[in-house]
Amino acid sequence: MQRILSTQLHAQVGRTVKIAGWVHRRRLLKSVAFLIVRDAAGLTQVVVTDPAVRAQVEALTEETVVEVVGTVVAQRGSAAPEVATATAPVGVELTDPTVRPLGPPAVPPPFDLYRPALTATLPTQLDHAPTALRHPTRSAALRISAAAVAGFRATLDARDFVEIHTPKVVGSSTESGANVFALDWFGRPAYLAQSPQFYKQLMVGVFERVYEVGPVFRAEPHDTVRHLAQYTSLDVELGFVADHRDVMDVLRETLAGMLSGVAGRAGGAVAVLGLDLPEVPAEIPAVHFTEALKIAGAPADEPDLAPAHERALGEWARREHGSDFLFVTGYPMAKRPFYTHPDPQRPGYSNGFDLLFRGLELVTGGQRLHRYDDYLAALAARGEPVEPYAGYVDAFRHGMPPHGGFAIGLERFVARLTGAANVREVTAFPRDLHRLTP
Amino acid sequence: MQRILSTQLHAQVGRTVKIAGWVHRRRLLKSVAFLIVRDAAGLTQVVVTDPAVRAQVEALTEETVVEVVGTVVAQRGSAAPEVATATAPVGVELTDPTVRPLGPPAVPPPFDLYRPALTATLPTQLDHAPTALRHPTRSAALRISAAAVAGFRATLDARDFVEIHTPKVVGSSTESGANVFALDWFGRPAYLAQSPQFYKQLMVGVFERVYEVGPVFRAEPHDTVRHLAQYTSLDVELGFVADHRDVMDVLRETLAGMLSGVAGRAGGAVAVLGLDLPEVPAEIPAVHFTEALKIAGAPADEPDLAPAHERALGEWARREHGSDFLFVTGYPMAKRPFYTHPDPQRPGYSNGFDLLFRGLELVTGGQRLHRYDDYLAALAARGEPVEPYAGYVDAFRHGMPPHGGFAIGLERFVARLTGAANVREVTAFPRDLHRLTP
Repeated sequence: MQRILSTQLHAQVGRTVKIAGWVHRRRLLKSVAFLIVRDAAGLTQVVVTDPAVRAQVEALTEETVVEVVGTVVAQRGSAAPEVATATAPVGVELTDPTVRPLGPPAVPPPFDLYRPALTATLPTQLDHAPTALRHPTRSAALRISAAAVAGFRATLDARDFVEIHTPKVVGSSTESGANVFALDWFGRPAYLAQSPQFYKQLMVGVFERVYEVGPVFRAEPHDTVRHLAQYTSLDVELGFVADHRDVMDVLRETLAGMLSGVAGRAGGAVAVLGLDLPEVPAEIPAVHFTEALKIAGAPADEPDLAPAHERALGEWARREHGSDFLFVTGYPMAKRPFYTHPDPQRPGYSNGFDLLFRGLELVTGGQRLHRYDDYLAALAARGEPVEPYAGYVDAFRHGMPPHGGFAIGLERFVARLTGAANVREVTAFPRDLHRLTP
Repeated sequence: MQRILSTQLHAQVGRTVKIAGWVHRRRLLKSVAFLIVRDAAGLTQVVVTDPAVRAQVEALTEETVVEVVGTVVAQRGSAAPEVATATAPVGVELTDPTVRPLGPPAVPPPFDLYRPALTATLPTQLDHAPTALRHPTRSAALRISAAAVAGFRATLDARDFVEIHTPKVVGSSTESGANVFALDWFGRPAYLAQSPQFYKQLMVGVFERVYEVGPVFRAEPHDTVRHLAQYTSLDVELGFVADHRDVMDVLRETLAGMLSGVAGRAGGAVAVLGLDLPEVPAEIPAVHFTEALKIAGAPADEPDLAPAHERALGEWARREHGSDFLFVTGYPMAKRPFYTHPDPQRPGYSNGFDLLFRGLELVTGGQRLHRYDDYLAALAARGEPVEPYAGYVDAFRHGMPPHGGFAIGLERFVARLTGAANVREVTAFPRDLHRLTP
């Protein structure tokens, strides 16, 4: 008999079927016992009345993997609370079961997976990630993450972007200088890549439009709720742009595609977490940095936006434009990386932008320099040597179109979307200052 | 005026349009000059008769980025050879052009991108990757790579697999022991992950079926045509299998999906390279390891298949089964990793398999152990301590279903498919013993 999933039971009323999964919970009442089995799709309630089977169920531990053969019936009583609130369709249950363990009795994890919320502290959850992630709220966040990435790719594939895979180990510590991980590369010093920035720009020379989904590494020495030492970066770069506004258009479509990916592919997970997915406006409101400072009530000579300013801007965007999203354009050049293209009209300001989501910075992007001489001048102006950037900067001698792009931190996106207070809640196996296992 | 791509010209005959791209080649004849412009989609022939424009074109260097406005006409003469053999639709060209450079004159790369094949040595190509990759044969291989990955994901998404992202830095040097890159993790020793093997197994406990596309790192001390120090691994793992044959079924579907992804999404690239895509048989022939030795004419006590044996098996599969693919199952346990599940009937042999493609090993996979005690026994039998594997092995105490999976090396797959002699030909920026730039 072919095993079926919990979500397929409702179409099998009256038939004998086989399910399999983990013992999620047992409820041992006087006259009847309930065995709740969890599979990838949801939960199934198995009704046990036969004394021999009951004895067997009593001996099972939570998380033991079992196979159950039984008859699908429309539900007579009320479902167990965890089933009623789960994504699995309620209204059916299995009766007259035979139960067969597929492995030895499991050691239950140090928290109850059947409770609506995981009550263990985050460090305990992270220490026991292989089991903590089995909790429906934790796995739902990861399903949303996968769906968002699928939406990201679908949007860009439809617009002729080509997916690339670039080196994660580089020969010189560039871009931000600090916060790099050093390693030994066959006896030579090397560094983990902090972003695919240079490579995605070079690949614009090949495909015009590229994207990459991959790990990036920051030796972030601070313990914060929004930084990880490894995170998944969703990188986009496109050529033949007029300026940063063409990049912002693609970002708007990409965000809309990610959210529609979540709605379409992870509807169950959205329901488990009780989320209200935001709408991406047809045109995301945009304010220039100088205007943003005024809105936030910040002094006109502030070089950057502080978190409090971002929150104020988020409230303003919601109030004035009914939007969860807000572009801030024209950040001062001094606060952007050297490859940023200046605003030709106001060279102290850049063609770089941030996208705020509910008052928090979610995406950074902009137009980049595309002329070799501009790179030399930009490095010289910052007192940086050319040599560590040679392989990158040289490529601009060989013809590069005006271009720009952006990068979205996947874990940060999912954390904001799900309301997680800490990016570690939406990361399977986070890496940070303290955590290198599991 | 909105820029259009070379492939959109045929629908615009008689109209004035704007194209943009790189100066691919100029052909300066007596009465007429041809400017061949390359964009992401292909090539466009621009016919220049006006003396002033001709003077401008004469001054342009190859790879300069230009914008051309002109009138689309059905082709009068014959197309330039590079256009005729390109993927761009021939039969139309641009006349009466105005040409506007989008940047300074480019420095041409040290090889001719307009010739049918790149004649520079591979090291020269790799040193100048940002321009070498612009050659239609090099970019075609990368388009095929992207299409194969898209097919991989589409196949698995349709079968309820969930995409995961796992740590690329790990706390202990496990799995194969040798060939790991060591790094400094906030003062602690750490290692680049050689595969997501352990993590994908753990995630079977969460989602039952998972996949990951990501970089893996091998400190491969040998200079070979088929090894890279970083490559892209396509990893799959699934639970609730009866044995390795369920895994082989998913692998067959995945391969078919990858090839149909290539055919459907990279048809132009397939044509540029003149490839014959292989058929994946409805059932891929499979032989047991002991039988494979006989077919290959190898001694019965050989513990593994040598390259010559694989070639002989590839020929046999083609001759006897008309198949480019062949499964070899039941490899001796001694030659497989400790997490491999033995064949219950013949415990000296494993439930592990290789897939040969045209006589070369392409995929390794199998059923894994799923009981905690079996892991302890397997490590003890190999004289390995449990401690470095603790976070991994412990998870098996908490209920894991029978499971298995496989991993496909993306660059190796694309190299075999395109007939590239060296995996570096199908890798944008390869990393190896000697190469850490660009």
